[in-house]
Amino acid sequence: MPDLAYVNGEIMPIEKAVVPIEDRGYQFGDGVYEFVASYEGRLFMLEEHLDRLERSMRELAFDPISRSEIKAAICDLLKRSGYPRAGIYIQISRGVAPRNHAITPDMAAQIIMTIRPVKEIQEDIRKNGATAITVQDTRWVRCDIKTVQLLANSLAKQKALDSGCDDAIFVSDQGIVREGTSSNLFIISGGKLITHPLTDYILPGITRTAVLNICKAADLEVEESFFGTETLYGADEVFLTGTVTEVLPVVRIDGRSIGDGKVGPITRRIYDLLRKQALAGGSA
Amino acid sequence: MPDLAYVNGEIMPIEKAVVPIEDRGYQFGDGVYEFVASYEGRLFMLEEHLDRLERSMRELAFDPISRSEIKAAICDLLKRSGYPRAGIYIQISRGVAPRNHAITPDMAAQIIMTIRPVKEIQEDIRKNGATAITVQDTRWVRCDIKTVQLLANSLAKQKALDSGCDDAIFVSDQGIVREGTSSNLFIISGGKLITHPLTDYILPGITRTAVLNICKAADLEVEESFFGTETLYGADEVFLTGTVTEVLPVVRIDGRSIGDGKVGPITRRIYDLLRKQALAGGSA
Repeated sequence: MPDLAYVNGEIMPIEKAVVPIEDRGYQFGDGVYEFVASYEGRLFMLEEHLDRLERSMRELAFDPISRSEIKAAICDLLKRSGYPRAGIYIQISRGVAPRNHAITPDMAAQIIMTIRPVKEIQEDIRKNGATAITVQDTRWVRCDIKTVQLLANSLAKQKALDSGCDDAIFVSDQGIVREGTSSNLFIISGGKLITHPLTDYILPGITRTAVLNICKAADLEVEESFFGTETLYGADEVFLTGTVTEVLPVVRIDGRSIGDGKVGPITRRIYDLLRKQALAGGSA
Repeated sequence: MPDLAYVNGEIMPIEKAVVPIEDRGYQFGDGVYEFVASYEGRLFMLEEHLDRLERSMRELAFDPISRSEIKAAICDLLKRSGYPRAGIYIQISRGVAPRNHAITPDMAAQIIMTIRPVKEIQEDIRKNGATAITVQDTRWVRCDIKTVQLLANSLAKQKALDSGCDDAIFVSDQGIVREGTSSNLFIISGGKLITHPLTDYILPGITRTAVLNICKAADLEVEESFFGTETLYGADEVFLTGTVTEVLPVVRIDGRSIGDGKVGPITRRIYDLLRKQALAGGSA
C-alpha cells in the first residue's frame, strides 16, 4: 500500500499520521495547503504550487519553511509511491501552542502531506459536462489565501450533490459570480472568454493561469472582469479549472442549459491544449 | 500536572493528545467547540453550553454524540484536575475520512477536550477597562455556529495587540457593529443597553443571554438592534461579554474615549451581578 503520509520529516502510512490537538490548524483553521498532481510520474507546475504556498504563508505571517525541504519531501513521496498519476496534498499550519486567539511568537510551522492516486473526475462528467447550482458565497473574505477554512466550500459541494448536481458556484451578495467550490470559473460569450479578476474573493488558480496563457498562445480573447448570474446563464460555454478539475465543461446551471447543453468547441480545445501541456511536463 | 486532555474517551496529558491528519477539523475547519469555566469547582451554565454545542452539530448535520457522555467526560476532567477555576475546551469534528470536499456518509464525530486553569483577564484591564480597535468583519457568514474557522478572529485579535490595544471589534462592510473576536458587545446610551440581535452574523453568546436576563431582573432597559460605529463611539459605556471575558468594560475604541474614559456604573453593576450569579453556581 504505497499511499503514504509525511509529518514534519517522517514518512508513515496515512492511518498512522497524527498531529497534536493543539495544532492551530485544528483549533483555528490556521493552516494553508496545496494539491499537486503528477502526469506519467512528472509533477505538473510544482514550482507554481510552491510559489503560491509560500505566498499563503507570507500573507498569514507564518514562520517560513525551507522550500527545498518541502520540494525534496514531495519528490521523495512521489518516488516512494511509484504512482504515475499521483495526487499530493501538502498542508502547513502555523504551529502548536496552548489555545489562544493571540498568536504565540516563534511557533514552528508544522507540515503534513499525503500521497494517493488522483481521484479523477468521473468519465461521463468529463465527456458530457458537469451540472452545477449557484449558492450564496458564505466564505470568509480572504479567499485568495489557500487556507483550510473550507467548511463553506464543503457544505456548498455537498448541497450540490444532494440536489443531484456535480458542483456549486459561489455568487456574492451583490450577484457577482465568483468561482466553484474548488475551482475557478470561465465563461465564453461570443467567442470571448471571461473570468473573475484576481481579488481577495477568489483563489489565484494555477490552472486558471495556465488557461490564460493557453488562450494567449492560441489567440483567444480573454477578459478578466466581473459578471452576474444572467451573464453566466446566457453564456455559450462555461467551464471550471483546477488541478484535478483540469478544464471541466459545465452544461447545466440551476436547471438551465448553457448554450445548447452540450460541451462547447472552445472548452474542448482548451482542455486538449492543457492536457497536451501537462503530458509534456510543461509549466504554466 | 493536572492539565489533561480527553480524546474520544481516553484521558492523557495534553502533550500526548493527537488526532489523525485526515480529521476534517484539520483539513476543512469542519469542527465546532465550546469553552466552559468553573467557579469554585462548579461549572457555570454547563447545560447552556451543551445546548449550544448540540445546536452547532445539528446546524452542520454532524452525527450526534450522546450528551450524557460529553457531560460525564467534562465532569470527570474537572474532578481529576482538582482545579477550582478550570477552563474546559471541548471540540467536536465531523469525523475522519480521506480528504474530499463532499461529506463521506456515516462518519463518527470525533471529540477532544482539554482542561487547564482559566487564564484570567489581566487585573489592570479588568479594573480600568480594555481598549479596542474596530476591524472589517472578514469572517464567514455563519458566525452563529461556533466553528473552529477562527482565523479571521485570531488575526483581528493579533492586530489589536500589535497596535497596543486589547481586542478588536468586528464591523460589517455596511458599518454595522457586530461583536468582539471572542465576545459579544453591548453599549449603553442614555441608560439603555443596546446589543446586536441574534442573526447569522454573531455568536449566540451564553454570557450575552445571562446579561439580558440580569438586565430584565434589574429593570434595566435593553434593546436588541443594529447600530454603527458613530453610535459605538458616542456611547456612555461599552462592554464585552464572554465565558472568560465575563463583563469587560471597554473604555477606548479606535483612540477615542468612551464616555469619560472610565469604567461606567452600569457596566460595573452588571459585572457584579454576573459574578454573584456565577459564584452562586446559578444558571442563565
